[in-house]
Amino acid sequence: MGESLTMKILREHLMSATETMKPGEEILVKIDHTLTQDATGTMAYLQFEAMGIGQVKTRVSVSYVDHNTLQTGYENMDDHVFLQTFAQKHGVYFSRPGNGICHQVHLERFSEPGYILLGSDSHTPTSGGAGMLAIGAGGLDVAVAMAGGPFGMPMPKIVGVKLTGKRQPWVAAKDVILEMLRRLSVKGGVGNIFEYHGDGINDLTVPERATICNMGAELGATTSVFPSDGITQAFLKKQGRENAWRELLPDADATYDELIEIDLSTLEPMIAQPHMPDNVTTVRSLAGLKLDQVCIGSCTNSSFHDLAIAGHVLKGKRVAPNVSMTLTPGSRQVFATIARDGILADIISAGARILEAACGPCIGMGQAPRSGGISLRSFNRNFEGRSGTPDAKVYLCSPETAAVSALTGVLTDPRDFGEYVAQKEPERYNVDDEGMILPPAENPESIEVVRGPNIKPLPQRGPLEEEIAGKVLLKVGDNITTDHIMPAGSKILPLRSNIPAISEFVFVRIDPQFPARAKANGGGIIIAGSNYGQGSSREHAALAPMYLGVKAIIAKSFARIHRANLINFGILPLIFSNEGDYDSLNPDDELIIKDVRTQLEKGSTIQIETKAGKALTVSCEVSPRQRDIIFSGGLLNHVKNGVSNGSQSIEDAALHLATSTMVSSNGQFRPGRPKKEEVSV
Amino acid sequence: MGESLTMKILREHLMSATETMKPGEEILVKIDHTLTQDATGTMAYLQFEAMGIGQVKTRVSVSYVDHNTLQTGYENMDDHVFLQTFAQKHGVYFSRPGNGICHQVHLERFSEPGYILLGSDSHTPTSGGAGMLAIGAGGLDVAVAMAGGPFGMPMPKIVGVKLTGKRQPWVAAKDVILEMLRRLSVKGGVGNIFEYHGDGINDLTVPERATICNMGAELGATTSVFPSDGITQAFLKKQGRENAWRELLPDADATYDELIEIDLSTLEPMIAQPHMPDNVTTVRSLAGLKLDQVCIGSCTNSSFHDLAIAGHVLKGKRVAPNVSMTLTPGSRQVFATIARDGILADIISAGARILEAACGPCIGMGQAPRSGGISLRSFNRNFEGRSGTPDAKVYLCSPETAAVSALTGVLTDPRDFGEYVAQKEPERYNVDDEGMILPPAENPESIEVVRGPNIKPLPQRGPLEEEIAGKVLLKVGDNITTDHIMPAGSKILPLRSNIPAISEFVFVRIDPQFPARAKANGGGIIIAGSNYGQGSSREHAALAPMYLGVKAIIAKSFARIHRANLINFGILPLIFSNEGDYDSLNPDDELIIKDVRTQLEKGSTIQIETKAGKALTVSCEVSPRQRDIIFSGGLLNHVKNGVSNGSQSIEDAALHLATSTMVSSNGQFRPGRPKKEEVSV
Repeated sequence: MGESLTMKILREHLMSATETMKPGEEILVKIDHTLTQDATGTMAYLQFEAMGIGQVKTRVSVSYVDHNTLQTGYENMDDHVFLQTFAQKHGVYFSRPGNGICHQVHLERFSEPGYILLGSDSHTPTSGGAGMLAIGAGGLDVAVAMAGGPFGMPMPKIVGVKLTGKRQPWVAAKDVILEMLRRLSVKGGVGNIFEYHGDGINDLTVPERATICNMGAELGATTSVFPSDGITQAFLKKQGRENAWRELLPDADATYDELIEIDLSTLEPMIAQPHMPDNVTTVRSLAGLKLDQVCIGSCTNSSFHDLAIAGHVLKGKRVAPNVSMTLTPGSRQVFATIARDGILADIISAGARILEAACGPCIGMGQAPRSGGISLRSFNRNFEGRSGTPDAKVYLCSPETAAVSALTGVLTDPRDFGEYVAQKEPERYNVDDEGMILPPAENPESIEVVRGPNIKPLPQRGPLEEEIAGKVLLKVGDNITTDHIMPAGSKILPLRSNIPAISEFVFVRIDPQFPARAKANGGGIIIAGSNYGQGSSREHAALAPMYLGVKAIIAKSFARIHRANLINFGILPLIFSNEGDYDSLNPDDELIIKDVRTQLEKGSTIQIETKAGKALTVSCEVSPRQRDIIFSGGLLNHVKNGVSNGSQSIEDAALHLATSTMVSSNGQFRPGRPKKEEVSV
Repeated sequence: MGESLTMKILREHLMSATETMKPGEEILVKIDHTLTQDATGTMAYLQFEAMGIGQVKTRVSVSYVDHNTLQTGYENMDDHVFLQTFAQKHGVYFSRPGNGICHQVHLERFSEPGYILLGSDSHTPTSGGAGMLAIGAGGLDVAVAMAGGPFGMPMPKIVGVKLTGKRQPWVAAKDVILEMLRRLSVKGGVGNIFEYHGDGINDLTVPERATICNMGAELGATTSVFPSDGITQAFLKKQGRENAWRELLPDADATYDELIEIDLSTLEPMIAQPHMPDNVTTVRSLAGLKLDQVCIGSCTNSSFHDLAIAGHVLKGKRVAPNVSMTLTPGSRQVFATIARDGILADIISAGARILEAACGPCIGMGQAPRSGGISLRSFNRNFEGRSGTPDAKVYLCSPETAAVSALTGVLTDPRDFGEYVAQKEPERYNVDDEGMILPPAENPESIEVVRGPNIKPLPQRGPLEEEIAGKVLLKVGDNITTDHIMPAGSKILPLRSNIPAISEFVFVRIDPQFPARAKANGGGIIIAGSNYGQGSSREHAALAPMYLGVKAIIAKSFARIHRANLINFGILPLIFSNEGDYDSLNPDDELIIKDVRTQLEKGSTIQIETKAGKALTVSCEVSPRQRDIIFSGGLLNHVKNGVSNGSQSIEDAALHLATSTMVSSNGQFRPGRPKKEEVSV
């Protein structure tokens, strides 16, 4: 029985050959690449530092700056300087502000088929477009990976997505993933890896495949991956990195846990309506909707093709008077290429506002729409309030739909624009990293890490108590996002390196009194509906509540990354055994979990009592490793305990967990870190 | 005895032929052009609206959006939409966000030699580079001008600046104005108009002349102006506006109140050190200073030449690792031109961060340096904290010096770079306003002005009371700036259209309780030392205290523009007759000014009693017109009274003030507003 590509990569990276790889059971994999961005990176590096490691142990680690680039106060540039000097000192590549969005740059300059990338950003799966297994995780997981430790996750279900046929003109890769969201919903990918295959993949370039993998994050998927084929080879060649290529295909008779089929030839332009990426319908069905803003860019849609098609549409025309249009290039490479080719001049002339190559409006970092405004965006998320305007309505679509609609001022099916002119990728991209992707220092000991006044030491909690008692501080409904828990945006994001300060914003969009109440009560417990913690992978949504004393979340279900983050920071993720108990709990109820350590040692079932005398049962399904992490009061304590328990290094501590050495069926994996010359940057 | 160019323009614009034009005495001039930007514009248009006028009465009025373009909340775009719809309805041209900085765009697309421009921004003098008399003023003055009213100012002293010789390579127009600042200081231009002449002006293009006029604002000057000559004609021709040109020179034997001479051939690259634009020395003397940031742009230095020379320097090279470099084009025209010519691609490749064509970091709107960072900027102001980082150190220099230093990472005299290659202006600029400079609507009655929730009606006070009684709400020392009174920055500036909201920030940096105390006491009186209200001309520093009920300021002395703003908003500016009385007054003292109207009618001496029975004498030196304004409760009421007193329109009310019709020695002035077709846009 043939193996999927995903299975091959995972198997090669298992810490132990004896792992069973049964869906749902935890597996530990060795990490080759890591990436961080500035909003999660400062904390990840502080955590790495707290482990007492010198140089990173990964094959490649890259620190990007793309989130906090507005710099409305000193905090942002202080973070940038910290990240730059930290990277230089500890063996990390540093992509400077202005060099682009982490996922676009990693795809272009670092991606390597068959390797595993762990990134502290939920859209890390982007590099799946080039045959990597690229997984988003919390910053602490990334810190542990940089220290040489393994990454633990439930063995995912591997879902084959068979693409057939060829897209009609004006139908974009974005429409493929919007169709996936329409079919599966934002919960439909939880616990899954989507592996794309079939003849239809020949209709997609690597950046287009990357768009699909990128927004697989909105399905809740662990990741998405495409094979590494001739198209991948051609892409890497244009990047001057042909050496990084190797063919990597599923077996011809590969089996999948599930199968989905999409006939590309029947797709049409799609759009996600407010306020969820899965609220998808056809553009045609909403055509005529009057727009206030159109934004092209983000890690989902800012490759050469995306901007070139926008330039083609806009050339010689003018953005409608009722529309403010922005364009954000994905990388300096793309930016320089469209500048060189004259595409950028056409876009500027058309009246688009050109923003720095960074995340920008996608993360609410500027360009908040008008009150109640309608904003059409080529981005990946349209959660309520994420744009910076609480009552704005954000729609998600392809760059094609966005560009055409910017001209008409109303939502327009791009097929009404006229003839489609395919935008040919350049013969060779504008490859030029020198001075903008800084390699680690030759003499790391000579580098002093610079820390601005906003960079505060990492708060930590002690080991898990014998008894947890506390009030219900807040009761929330279904689909609470990490944006609800720990808002971002231009005013809050600069505080990412300062947990005491950023904690004052936990849940403020739901309940402005939450931080004060949590502190006044010495912490407590949160009650939630299903899919708690969906969306961005930000670990601050666990770390800041931990700082405020939150001890447990009792929910109907959790989003994967957030659940892992809760464990990593010593907060108990508990699931109602009987969902009806959700209704019986209310704010200010006092809950007691007696002998919690003993209960956890016995199994996953946990008894809770209310002060009023009621009892309820919840479950806490954790692997033995995760239980140990919870007992330690979080992953950082756990890893440090591992070191203090006699292992020489975290890497050793991690390897001791494994029962055999690395399995490498084809000899291509190099468990150690390659010399810098070997990395094709 | 020959006349200066300034005298000719002023004389042609006098409201009355009998005005004596003695330096220091108030003159009233007719205004041809107005400009506003978005941070001052919303209030100016609310004031215009409060006068009940339909269409603007000026020759040309333009509303620009360039300040609040980060849009970190809904307030900014709400303002943009208000400004756009207001402009459409009331006969104002609207330059859309992304179209560039008001002064650069006005120079390019609207400037007309010999006309007077009044702008609600202190750098309005920029259009003096094209032979306009361009004056910065408060928004209310601009509103009155749009209503057809005259602008009153003390007759300025006319200072001739004779330029001789030709600059050495790498010496820029910026170095000329930095030399002026070195010689004269930031107070050296108060009450003056600087008129540049002499053979040396042939060495300067119109954008270079504009750089010099622009930063004349830092001398404290009323404005600066260059003749309209063949160079002006060539510039306007390249702008497709040759019709706007007419020759306008001083008489060959013109006399000036004072004369300054600068030999351009002896100049070298100059730099202003923290924290004042007049703290000027040579670049050479500080060479080697390590930099953290380099910024090119702002209304002072973002023309084609400025960016082209940066591109020439940066081409094929890389920004130093310790430097974050930003580049902000001055206008969409410049941006599209450098994109078309390949210059932009060179700049992007070199690693500069490209920001939207707007004011950007110059007004602290993003790109705050790191804590204690050294920032080298081609801008016009380096006041402490203005960059957004309280302890940053900002240096001001030419784009040439900035670009060369960005490469080396340390302050570098550009003459050390190598051969200077003159950057030829394009044969024709990339003229293309369609759709981005929106003309007023054909059917203004059909336009609905859109007001977001942050745009609040203009608060107004009634006529001056017969008796003023109130507590001393605050006692402050010397040199209080308008930044102390009404702070700005990226968090407060978005509230400019909402006086109730922004009033909560009055004096907060001195006394956070001030707004609450003022409201609790129903207003009151402020005691101040000397030079009260220095710095930025922002009228919110008078309007917001007026809203809080402040009735009078008793100070040792006032800064000129703020004193005018206090009168415009009906707050009494009182000066201690005996400075010793400053010491005897304390917070919470209750003061009474009885029969204040009667006292003011009798003369400038005003008697004040304290509730404790003490008496003190203050003075209130005002012209009869200013007294009438105070009696009316501010300029807005005063103008409205003029209309209600029987005149058909504000314009008529203004003309009735004059004793004769407009004087036009050459027949070229058209007192009315031209048909739109006549305006060479």
